Amino acid sequence: MPDVVFSVDQSRSMRDQAVPGHNRWHPDIPPAATVRPGDEFRMECREWTDGQIRNDDSANDVRDVDLDRCHMLSGPVAVEGAEPGDLLVVDILDLGPVPQEQGEVAGQGWGYTGIFSRANGGGFLTDRFPDAYKAVWDFHGQKATSRHVPGVEFTGITHPGLFGTAPSHDLLARWNARERALIATDPDRVPPLALPPLEDGVLAGALSGEAAAEVGRTGARTVPPRENGGNHDIKNLSRGARVFYPVHRPGGLLSGGDLHFSQGDGEITFCGAIEMGGFIDLRVDLIKGGMETYGVTTNPVFMPGDTEPRHTEFVSFIGISVDHDSDTNHYNDATLAYRNACLNAIAYLEKFGYSPEQAYLLLGAAPIEGRVSGVVDIPNACCSLYLPTAIFDFDIRPSASGPRWADRGSCATAS
Amino acid sequence: MPDVVFSVDQSRSMRDQAVPGHNRWHPDIPPAATVRPGDEFRMECREWTDGQIRNDDSANDVRDVDLDRCHMLSGPVAVEGAEPGDLLVVDILDLGPVPQEQGEVAGQGWGYTGIFSRANGGGFLTDRFPDAYKAVWDFHGQKATSRHVPGVEFTGITHPGLFGTAPSHDLLARWNARERALIATDPDRVPPLALPPLEDGVLAGALSGEAAAEVGRTGARTVPPRENGGNHDIKNLSRGARVFYPVHRPGGLLSGGDLHFSQGDGEITFCGAIEMGGFIDLRVDLIKGGMETYGVTTNPVFMPGDTEPRHTEFVSFIGISVDHDSDTNHYNDATLAYRNACLNAIAYLEKFGYSPEQAYLLLGAAPIEGRVSGVVDIPNACCSLYLPTAIFDFDIRPSASGPRWADRGSCATAS
Amino acid sequence: MPDVVFSVDQSRSMRDQAVPGHNRWHPDIPPAATVRPGDEFRMECREWTDGQIRNDDSANDVRDVDLDRCHMLSGPVAVEGAEPGDLLVVDILDLGPVPQEQGEVAGQGWGYTGIFSRANGGGFLTDRFPDAYKAVWDFHGQKATSRHVPGVEFTGITHPGLFGTAPSHDLLARWNARERALIATDPDRVPPLALPPLEDGVLAGALSGEAAAEVGRTGARTVPPRENGGNHDIKNLSRGARVFYPVHRPGGLLSGGDLHFSQGDGEITFCGAIEMGGFIDLRVDLIKGGMETYGVTTNPVFMPGDTEPRHTEFVSFIGISVDHDSDTNHYNDATLAYRNACLNAIAYLEKFGYSPEQAYLLLGAAPIEGRVSGVVDIPNACCSLYLPTAIFDFDIRPSASGPRWADRGSCATAS
Amino acid sequence: MPDVVFSVDQSRSMRDQAVPGHNRWHPDIPPAATVRPGDEFRMECREWTDGQIRNDDSANDVRDVDLDRCHMLSGPVAVEGAEPGDLLVVDILDLGPVPQEQGEVAGQGWGYTGIFSRANGGGFLTDRFPDAYKAVWDFHGQKATSRHVPGVEFTGITHPGLFGTAPSHDLLARWNARERALIATDPDRVPPLALPPLEDGVLAGALSGEAAAEVGRTGARTVPPRENGGNHDIKNLSRGARVFYPVHRPGGLLSGGDLHFSQGDGEITFCGAIEMGGFIDLRVDLIKGGMETYGVTTNPVFMPGDTEPRHTEFVSFIGISVDHDSDTNHYNDATLAYRNACLNAIAYLEKFGYSPEQAYLLLGAAPIEGRVSGVVDIPNACCSLYLPTAIFDFDIRPSASGPRWADRGSCATAS
Repeated sequence: MPDVVFSVDQSRSMRDQAVPGHNRWHPDIPPAATVRPGDEFRMECREWTDGQIRNDDSANDVRDVDLDRCHMLSGPVAVEGAEPGDLLVVDILDLGPVPQEQGEVAGQGWGYTGIFSRANGGGFLTDRFPDAYKAVWDFHGQKATSRHVPGVEFTGITHPGLFGTAPSHDLLARWNARERALIATDPDRVPPLALPPLEDGVLAGALSGEAAAEVGRTGARTVPPRENGGNHDIKNLSRGARVFYPVHRPGGLLSGGDLHFSQGDGEITFCGAIEMGGFIDLRVDLIKGGMETYGVTTNPVFMPGDTEPRHTEFVSFIGISVDHDSDTNHYNDATLAYRNACLNAIAYLEKFGYSPEQAYLLLGAAPIEGRVSGVVDIPNACCSLYLPTAIFDFDIRPSASGPRWADRGSCATAS
Repeated sequence: MPDVVFSVDQSRSMRDQAVPGHNRWHPDIPPAATVRPGDEFRMECREWTDGQIRNDDSANDVRDVDLDRCHMLSGPVAVEGAEPGDLLVVDILDLGPVPQEQGEVAGQGWGYTGIFSRANGGGFLTDRFPDAYKAVWDFHGQKATSRHVPGVEFTGITHPGLFGTAPSHDLLARWNARERALIATDPDRVPPLALPPLEDGVLAGALSGEAAAEVGRTGARTVPPRENGGNHDIKNLSRGARVFYPVHRPGGLLSGGDLHFSQGDGEITFCGAIEMGGFIDLRVDLIKGGMETYGVTTNPVFMPGDTEPRHTEFVSFIGISVDHDSDTNHYNDATLAYRNACLNAIAYLEKFGYSPEQAYLLLGAAPIEGRVSGVVDIPNACCSLYLPTAIFDFDIRPSASGPRWADRGSCATAS
Repeated sequence: MPDVVFSVDQSRSMRDQAVPGHNRWHPDIPPAATVRPGDEFRMECREWTDGQIRNDDSANDVRDVDLDRCHMLSGPVAVEGAEPGDLLVVDILDLGPVPQEQGEVAGQGWGYTGIFSRANGGGFLTDRFPDAYKAVWDFHGQKATSRHVPGVEFTGITHPGLFGTAPSHDLLARWNARERALIATDPDRVPPLALPPLEDGVLAGALSGEAAAEVGRTGARTVPPRENGGNHDIKNLSRGARVFYPVHRPGGLLSGGDLHFSQGDGEITFCGAIEMGGFIDLRVDLIKGGMETYGVTTNPVFMPGDTEPRHTEFVSFIGISVDHDSDTNHYNDATLAYRNACLNAIAYLEKFGYSPEQAYLLLGAAPIEGRVSGVVDIPNACCSLYLPTAIFDFDIRPSASGPRWADRGSCATAS
Repeated sequence: MPDVVFSVDQSRSMRDQAVPGHNRWHPDIPPAATVRPGDEFRMECREWTDGQIRNDDSANDVRDVDLDRCHMLSGPVAVEGAEPGDLLVVDILDLGPVPQEQGEVAGQGWGYTGIFSRANGGGFLTDRFPDAYKAVWDFHGQKATSRHVPGVEFTGITHPGLFGTAPSHDLLARWNARERALIATDPDRVPPLALPPLEDGVLAGALSGEAAAEVGRTGARTVPPRENGGNHDIKNLSRGARVFYPVHRPGGLLSGGDLHFSQGDGEITFCGAIEMGGFIDLRVDLIKGGMETYGVTTNPVFMPGDTEPRHTEFVSFIGISVDHDSDTNHYNDATLAYRNACLNAIAYLEKFGYSPEQAYLLLGAAPIEGRVSGVVDIPNACCSLYLPTAIFDFDIRPSASGPRWADRGSCATAS
């Protein structure tokens, strides 16, 4: 096991750790540890809400979650010699839930998937699913099952939802400017178009007092992916992946967390992955001047992992960029197309006895593939969703004998 | 070899075949052939432009292509017993270029990929690539190479870009209404938001005179995918795939064409696949009442093929929904995110010596994967593009030793 | 389609072709065609018995087959510039059954798998299966089904059973010496230990009279693989494979045939593949002096194809080197271990209603994987056999609810 | 993490554990723990030699290893309700090296591969490699590298080499009879044909005194696989695999160990895997009467794991059943054929700068595939060995430019 350079006591909040992490992106958060190119090291991580969600049968915790303190990140880790313009090479050697422990915090033998309330976070299909729901998943080695979504068992494609380097002051200012401009187009929208900096709930690593407050006032929220990496939620950044992050600050200042036991492409319920705390083992290196050399001006480049669960049989669903409820055409809108593919999959799964919420939770958590299929056939973008047949303990393929309906219980709901 | 129920003489236009096909979707186009559930049969297909593109080093033909006559489809084939509400089960047994022939028409030993001019069709990246370009690909069994994009050889994931059933009159009316409404929001846009029905250039199978003109005036253009299937451009509808099409008219009336030797997810250059004429062998069956039974209200469901070219190593690119030129944020726009992933891949490939146009043509034609990665992390949708490393005859992975630049020639340009 | 350098009229014996092939390995058989490095070309092939087996429900033809005339090979093709010591690079671009034809010869829309009689050829399990049986397979694009083995449909991993270069006189003499020495250890064995040269039934390409007779008297039989390649029956030499054959004679003199629509590892019924005539498209090149450069002193090296049917779920069987009937231990005998793995699979499939012969035929033809698992754990070698679950239209996995027995008909038997 | 039902303190010998394991198969060794069908539990394991091999640069420890005490197994675990004739269903949920520890025992951050001396164990190629050699491998998450075999890094296909149920007295007697009969055919052979029961070094769990001595005198050695499972060394019994073991004794009495971080098919150096201590998490269930129901009379049946490292490009080597040194033909001998495939791979790798011993060690440890290709083409069995190209940090494919030779150091040797 490599040395732990960022440790977490899972019985405490990230705020109360010996060396606390942070929940905003800001260039001035000091490194919690320093490593050298070639080093291998472990970072321990809290579950992204800092432990607000419980292993029970009520979704009240999801409904009432305090999002101002999310995501709780571990780091930053400085890499000696990293300079702006370099590419920081990060090998994901291993990751997983909290080792050797069963307990009350997600990651201690279990995780959860949440459908967030429209009034508090929302999600990809929030117009159709405005209320809060939850599924708790039990871990069995690499596999997961849920009492809230019976009839499925699948191998997780374990990955960190969120890792990135610190932004420069200039880059941070650009983020704030462009996101505020977007918010200004519809400032009262629920859910909001974007999240502006917020002093409430800020955690800024070793900083405190005014320095921390300044991070709150100007630091970028951690929800979206940006030029530093960030909350990619790319399920294929799994074990064995190599990521090349742009370096914007001396030392690179790598932070991350939001570990997922599994996730489908899109993480469609917002909190669609199986969320957990745990550990991640990394190895870092540098490509000096790599941003210019490889033409990396915005987002990271990566090579995916090589041990994802193998599936070869899928039932696949198609969506196009039409609002079918109102028969309204949207131009080449891949987001809408994928939303329709998801709705088509949910309608299909209902025929087997799942509630729409169960189906939605499943599509967020299981290793489904979401593909941009056609984006040039005006006016209809086309996306497709591949649902592996092997994760079900019954046959979900279409046939002349019809679907095998059964009572499949229910997920956790809010009171 | 199964019986040929729709035959094509590749030396003639689709208009001049013994039994002509059609280039509009309309419920009244009579079947060209009738088959029974369980039957296996072959349909021969013209290349989608009906042979306008040549195997040469000029993109003038792409620039000047007459799109009013596209796509030239084979069919319709009626299936005995098919009724509205059924699912038409279509197994893709085999497909390929024109057998046993070398010649002047795409599909006779070669195919092409085109970047269409902004003034005549456009494409996914038309703002960046407003002019016409072309790459000609030579077929070597299942593999393709191009004198216009040297240094790559890949196995094609051969598939039909376009197959579908006939719409009902009601469904057709809804398509026309919603697409006209979209066009009306910006009627003079170049390229247009959508294509309305058009009498010019119409081909309506066995219909002629006023009946054919009526098909032109009210028939839907073939460019987008819709509730009948249509121009999905889903590369995984390859050999071995099974597709479940909604039936909207008695007999189902299956038509298709637009065969692709290969294509990347998105078909990003508009004519981004390697286009060809050829043949397709199908087997059909019915799930009576399957639309209701399986909750299929809009698009087809499918199971993908099982012999796609295997790749396990990829260099992957990420895009988010930000216009980086103007630093403008767009809300959760997966189309923009995928566009940025494509642009990031192009910038990367330039470092190895490809022109931007060559890189763009390659991404359209090679079996790249385009994934909807995160669509809930407001405001930035995240898409990713997986480029298989094995298709290059040099190492394209990032490393400290830098990219291996070489003079890689040029694609075909317009004069 | 590449030029045909060796053509076959499937209505005639290989003996009666315009340019006949050959059925012995001999350095003096003159080339039927000459190509250059870099050339792509097609060779047409007869089914290996030259058309003795019929599409019917009797195995009398298998029982009585004349093996003296097997295998009927196409070629030789000389490659300009090839010299002894070179490696001949052969890309398998495409192959398949006889194009565009349905007919009476295997390869014209159908193929067969045979269990040979112990008295005439035998096979891997001939002690258990001494009589002749046959299954006829119908081709549906890339898939095969059989009226003799109902309940399965699978995608073929199409490949040539046999390709190789001509031996030198010296190499041929060594083959004859070592095989005669083996035969001499048990000259009356049924089936024989090996097949010596035989004048009866010889076909020597363009040679006739005494020259052909000499080929018969000294030429090597085509059954085994040897240093020139030969009858490898490696199913992964499929489309997209690249093979590096040692060159022993000027021009290399490449010959082959014995095309298989599908085969399991081991080709366990002797004629265990789905046998067919058809075509193969090749591209050749040379690595000058490659045998020494790469240390290739005996057998070819290859890179497998990249479009084999993907399977991820298997029921797997284990065998060890014990004769369980007599409880006799054999030392580290992988052949016996694999034989036991096959017998274990057959016993398992019987529980689902297949006759032992059907199961045996299926294991020969379907794309099963046969692995050398442990060969050092004295005294018991361990081999394993991976049977893909997806090829069955019922669930063959072990479960507490027991196997789903059904009447599954019977294969063709001898009268 | 599931409950630990068999725990190991890695600083002590298996003999000195609170509850010791055993190193012989015998029906009378009492269970160390009891579980119920459906239970999940962890077993901790010692490295197979009980810690005799060190992380250093000398192979003296391999040369002098005491094999009488091998393999040190954890267990037995009794399963409530298991009766002879049942199938014991074992799901491999997870396994890995010793968690959270770096240390001096294999499994504590490192493992080793050994070539055993001919005089003390031998191996698959002992005639060619009669002396002892060793490679130490460092673990980096799922990947391994070795200072003794530079230039390669690969993801391990982690698995237990050895698991099985207790034999009945009758079955044990049959094993002893047949193995003694084999030994009697050449009792002085070095290495021996098989290993008879041996009182020296016996460890019999909780038994001691005369009871333990009796286990030594009559218990079966653990080296070979047999009807109870045993030392299969099947690399695909990895995470996610489900194994169906025959039950011969009440409670089943499941024992195992010999964990491997990685292994190639065949485990060709005898100690060819990357050996380690560690943990394995299992879930058990029963199929009552399953042996008869599924026709399982000898060896276990299994379904392989679903997260093995994915590889698609291979350089593959062929071997046939000829002794090429003496030009002697052996009849259909798959063991010899695979041996030749291994020798051909070694000769090839030498051209890139590896010593033969390094190449041999690599083929034992890396996830190579060994296939039974053709076993009916008399007299020459044909086996093939697939070496993944992606594990090398240089290009190992054959090409006209020749192999890239480099000084690649050396493995550990004996003094």
